[in-house]
Amino acid sequence: MNHFQPATADMAFVLQSVLQAPQQLQALPAHAEADTDLMQQVLEESGKFVAEVVAPLNRDGDEIGAQFRDGAVTMPPGFRDAYQAFWQAGWPALACATEDGGQGLPTVLEAMLYEMLSAANHGWTMAPGLLHGAYECIKHHASDELKARYLEKVATGEWLATMCLTEPHAGSDLGLCRTKAVPLPDGRYALSGTKIFISGGEHDLSDNIVHLVLARLPDAPPGPKGLSLFLVPKFYEDGTRSAAVCERIEEKMGLHGSPTCVMRFDEAPGWIVGEPGKGLNAMFVMMNAARLHVGLQGIGLLEAAWQKADAYSKERRQMRAPGGSAKAGEADLIEQHPAMRRILDAQRAWIDAGRVVAYRTALELDILKHHGDATRREVASRWCALVTPVLKAAWTDQAFHGASACLQVFGGHGFVREWGIEQIVRDSRVAMIYEGTNEIQAIDLLLRKTLPDGGAALLTLLGELSADLGGDEQAVRAKSQLDGFASFLRERLLPRATTKDAPADLPHWLADDFLRAVALLLMAWAWARIGATPGAGTARWQTAQTGFWRWVWPEFGMRVAMMETTLAG
Amino acid sequence: MNHFQPATADMAFVLQSVLQAPQQLQALPAHAEADTDLMQQVLEESGKFVAEVVAPLNRDGDEIGAQFRDGAVTMPPGFRDAYQAFWQAGWPALACATEDGGQGLPTVLEAMLYEMLSAANHGWTMAPGLLHGAYECIKHHASDELKARYLEKVATGEWLATMCLTEPHAGSDLGLCRTKAVPLPDGRYALSGTKIFISGGEHDLSDNIVHLVLARLPDAPPGPKGLSLFLVPKFYEDGTRSAAVCERIEEKMGLHGSPTCVMRFDEAPGWIVGEPGKGLNAMFVMMNAARLHVGLQGIGLLEAAWQKADAYSKERRQMRAPGGSAKAGEADLIEQHPAMRRILDAQRAWIDAGRVVAYRTALELDILKHHGDATRREVASRWCALVTPVLKAAWTDQAFHGASACLQVFGGHGFVREWGIEQIVRDSRVAMIYEGTNEIQAIDLLLRKTLPDGGAALLTLLGELSADLGGDEQAVRAKSQLDGFASFLRERLLPRATTKDAPADLPHWLADDFLRAVALLLMAWAWARIGATPGAGTARWQTAQTGFWRWVWPEFGMRVAMMETTLAG
Repeated sequence: MNHFQPATADMAFVLQSVLQAPQQLQALPAHAEADTDLMQQVLEESGKFVAEVVAPLNRDGDEIGAQFRDGAVTMPPGFRDAYQAFWQAGWPALACATEDGGQGLPTVLEAMLYEMLSAANHGWTMAPGLLHGAYECIKHHASDELKARYLEKVATGEWLATMCLTEPHAGSDLGLCRTKAVPLPDGRYALSGTKIFISGGEHDLSDNIVHLVLARLPDAPPGPKGLSLFLVPKFYEDGTRSAAVCERIEEKMGLHGSPTCVMRFDEAPGWIVGEPGKGLNAMFVMMNAARLHVGLQGIGLLEAAWQKADAYSKERRQMRAPGGSAKAGEADLIEQHPAMRRILDAQRAWIDAGRVVAYRTALELDILKHHGDATRREVASRWCALVTPVLKAAWTDQAFHGASACLQVFGGHGFVREWGIEQIVRDSRVAMIYEGTNEIQAIDLLLRKTLPDGGAALLTLLGELSADLGGDEQAVRAKSQLDGFASFLRERLLPRATTKDAPADLPHWLADDFLRAVALLLMAWAWARIGATPGAGTARWQTAQTGFWRWVWPEFGMRVAMMETTLAG
Repeated sequence: MNHFQPATADMAFVLQSVLQAPQQLQALPAHAEADTDLMQQVLEESGKFVAEVVAPLNRDGDEIGAQFRDGAVTMPPGFRDAYQAFWQAGWPALACATEDGGQGLPTVLEAMLYEMLSAANHGWTMAPGLLHGAYECIKHHASDELKARYLEKVATGEWLATMCLTEPHAGSDLGLCRTKAVPLPDGRYALSGTKIFISGGEHDLSDNIVHLVLARLPDAPPGPKGLSLFLVPKFYEDGTRSAAVCERIEEKMGLHGSPTCVMRFDEAPGWIVGEPGKGLNAMFVMMNAARLHVGLQGIGLLEAAWQKADAYSKERRQMRAPGGSAKAGEADLIEQHPAMRRILDAQRAWIDAGRVVAYRTALELDILKHHGDATRREVASRWCALVTPVLKAAWTDQAFHGASACLQVFGGHGFVREWGIEQIVRDSRVAMIYEGTNEIQAIDLLLRKTLPDGGAALLTLLGELSADLGGDEQAVRAKSQLDGFASFLRERLLPRATTKDAPADLPHWLADDFLRAVALLLMAWAWARIGATPGAGTARWQTAQTGFWRWVWPEFGMRVAMMETTLAG
C-alpha cells in the first residue's frame, strides 16, 4: 500500500493560477511578502513534511489506534514524535500573529497544509486541527493574564487544545448544557460536569492540554444565553494535575488514531474566557474555523481516495473494455472501463472545484482580517458566512460517498483492509456529523443566512459569481445557471417560503436540496474559472471538467425539481 | 442495543395482499397447499427462529469475528449451535424437492427467510446463503453417483457448500481462471490452484464442506469455454481430509462473522459436475440464485438500519423542530425534524417497494419451475432475467447508502460502535461488489439483455407493468412514466446505441443510469400496486408512498437527463 502523496502541483495551480492568490494577498499590507515564490516554498515544505513524517503513520493509526488505560491515552506508534517535530518546526503557528510567536503567513497556506494533513492521516490531524481556533478564541476573548499564560503555548502548538461542548444529553443543542462553573475565592471557577465526543481530550502528543469548556454559572439563565466559556488545563503551572479526567474513549467506526474522549470535570478550577453568558460567542470563532477545516478534510480525504483508486486502475487489469487495447485472452486496465472512468473523473471534478472554493474561502478570511476597505471586507464576510456551511456539508458528504465509489474501483479487494481504501470510507464518515451535522449546515444556510434578509446576501453572492465569469462557452453556461437560480430564489422560493401563511416547516423541508444546489453552482463557477485559466487545456483538467458537467452537474436539476415539489406541496 | 425484529406483518402484507401470492401459487399443482394459512405459519416460524436464535449473535459476529489459526477457522460464539439448530429444524431444505429431503415449499418463502436472516446477522447468513444454489447445481448437473453422495446432504444443509470461482489475478473475469484439473485413473480429477474471496471456505459450522470449483482440464481451450466445474469436499466419505486448504482469511471492512478464505487446492481429488467445458453453465444457476439473495440482503440490511434509526428517533430528543411539541427549554424527538423524517421515509419507500419487486421475482421463479403453460413461463423467465440484476444492484446500493443515512439520524452516536448502526454500513458495503459488481449488473441489463434483442424483452416487460396498473391517480402517474420510458427507449436510446456507427463504448457509458432508471420504474409500479391494495390507506403506508414520490422518484429525471447527454455526446 502506498502512502498519500500531496498533490502540490495541482494545489499550486488552483492557488496561484486560478485564484491568483499572490496578487490578492500582496494588496494587503499584512501580506506584502506573500509572493508566488514564498507561497510555493511554504506549500512544498508542507508537502514534504506531510509525506515524510505524517503519512507513513496512518495505517498504524487505524490498526493500533489510540489506547486507553487508567485515565491515560497512549497514541499510536510515532504519533508523539511526529507531533513534536510538527510544532517545533513551527507548522501550527504558520498563520498566527508574529507577536504571539507565529509566522504571520496567510490563512490560505494553513488551509492547504491541513488539507494535506487530513488526506495523509485524518486521525493524527484531529489534534492540531483545533489549535488555530483555540488560538483565535483565547486571543480575542481571554484576559491579558490568561493570554500571558496560554496564548503563545497554543499559538505555537507546544500545548494542544480541545473544544468541550457536547454533553451526553445535549448533542447539536448546546443550549441544554448542564456543566456547572462555581466561582472560587481566587477569581477562578470550579467546573463540574461530563463532556462527550471530545477529540484529543487526553493523549501523549503534547506535554499539556488546554480545554475550552462551555459551562453555566450558578445564576445563569437557561438556554444558550446562560453559557460561559472557561479554560481548564490538564496541568497547572505548578505541575499539579487538574481534575479534568478522561473516563474512557469511544470505540468507533473509524478515525481510530484520534481518541474521542468522555471528559469528567470534578470541581476542576479554571478561568473564564470572555464575559459571562457570552460563551457561545467566544466559541463561535473556533466553530467557524473548524467548519472550514472540516470542509478541507473532505477535500483531502477524497484526494487520498482518488489517488489510491487511480493508481490501482492504472496497474490492475480486469475484463475487456470497449475499445480497449488488450490482446486476445488478456484483460484491459481498470481505468479503461467506462463505469470506472466515470467514478474517477467525477471525484476529480469534486476535488478540483472544492479546492477553488475552499482556498477562495481562506483567502476571503485573510481579506476580512486585513483589507483596508470596509466594502471589500463586507464582500469577504458575505462569502465566508454563505460558503462555509456549503463547503462543510457538500464536501464531507462527497468525501464519504466518493471514497466509497473509489472503493468500488478495487472490486473485492476494496473491502479488504490491506489496500487502505476502506479506512478512508470509515474515517471520512464522521465528518458528515461533527462540527454541526450536514443537515444543520443546510439549516444554517437557508434559515439563518438566506431567509432572514429576504435572500439579499445570497442573491448578491450569486450576482458576484456570475459577474466574475467571462464569455467563453463554459462561463456562459455557468452564468446562465447562476442567474437562473437567482430567479428561482427571487421568484419562486422566497415569495412562498417567507409569506406568513407558509407552513412553519417548509424551509426545513427545502434546506438540504437548497444547500446541494448552491454547492453545485459554486462548482459550476469554479469549473468556469478553471476553464478560463491558462494551462487548463491539458487532458488532466479537461477530463475533470467534462466529468463535472456530465456526471456531477445533472444533480442540480433534480434538486431544483425536488424544491419545486416541496414548494408546490 | 436492540436486536433486529423481523417485520413479519409488513412482509405478509406485501406477500399476501399486494402480490396475492397464495392465489398465484395455488394455481401451480406443485404448490396446491400453499394457502394463506400455510404461508403465514412458515413466515411467523421463520421470524421466530431468526429473532430468537440468529439475531442475538450479530454483535459478537462483528466484534469477535471468525478466527483463523493453523488452517482452521473458529466461528464466533454461538454460530455453530445456531447453524446446527437451523439445519436440523429443516430451514435450508424449505424449498428443496421432497424427494431430495426437502419440504417442497415455494421459493418465495425461502427468499423471505433469507431476507430476515441477512437483516439479523449478515455474517452468519453468508454460509447457508449459498446452499440452495449449490443444491440446484448438483441436482441439475452432477452424475447420479455424485448426487447419491452429496445431494441430500446439501439439500438439508447438513453439509455447507462454497462457490470457488475467483482467483488472485481473475476477479470479475472468470475466463482467466488457471486452476487445473488433471484426470486421475479412478475417474476423478486432481485439482490444483488458488481461489480467493471464498465465503465460508473453512469453518466449524457443519461437519463437512462441499466446494464447487471452477477449473481447467489439461486440453481445455483458453477463456470461459475452457472451464469445467468440479466438486471437492473437505472430507471424503472415509473420513480423510482433502487437500483443499484454507491458507488465510481476509481482514475486512466488515462482515467479520463470515470468513473470507484464500483456498489452496494441492492436487485435491474431486469429481466433475456436468460436462467438460460447461462449468460456467453449471455454475450459472448458482449465480442467478445468489443474485436474488444478494438483492434480498440489501432489503434486509436496509430494514435493519431503518429499525435502529426509527427506534432512536422516537426515543431521543434533540433541538426544537418546526411545529414540534416540546415545552420551552426542552427538545423535540428526532423523528419530528424534517431532515430526519426525510431519511426515514425514503428508506421505507425503498424497503417496501424492494419487497414487492423481490418477492415477485421469487414468485416468478416458482412459476418458471412449475407452471404448465409455456407462455406464462416465458413471462416469468423474462421477468427474472431483467429484474434480477436491477434488484441486486439498486437495492445493495441503497442498503449501503441508506444505512449511512440512518447512521446520520444518530448524530455522533452513529459513529460509535455501541449502537450497532455503523456495523450495518460496514457489512452492507460488500454486497455492492460480490456476485458481480453493481456495474457488471448494469452491463448485464443493458448490453446482454436489452440491446441484443433490440429492446424487445424489456419493452414487453414495461408494457406488462403498465398494463398491470389500474386507474387511480398513482397508477396513472406510474403508467405514464413506464410508457414514457418505453418511448425513450424505442425512439432515443435504441436507434442511437444500436446503429453501426455508434461508438463501441456508448452503451457502457449509459449502463449505470439505465439500470437506475429501470429500478425507479419498478418502484413506481410497486408503489402503485401497494397503493391499490386494501389496507394501504394507513399512515404507515401513506407516509412511505409520499416518501417515494417526493424523495426517491426525482432521481429518475436526472438519470434520463444523463442518458440524453451521453446519447447527444
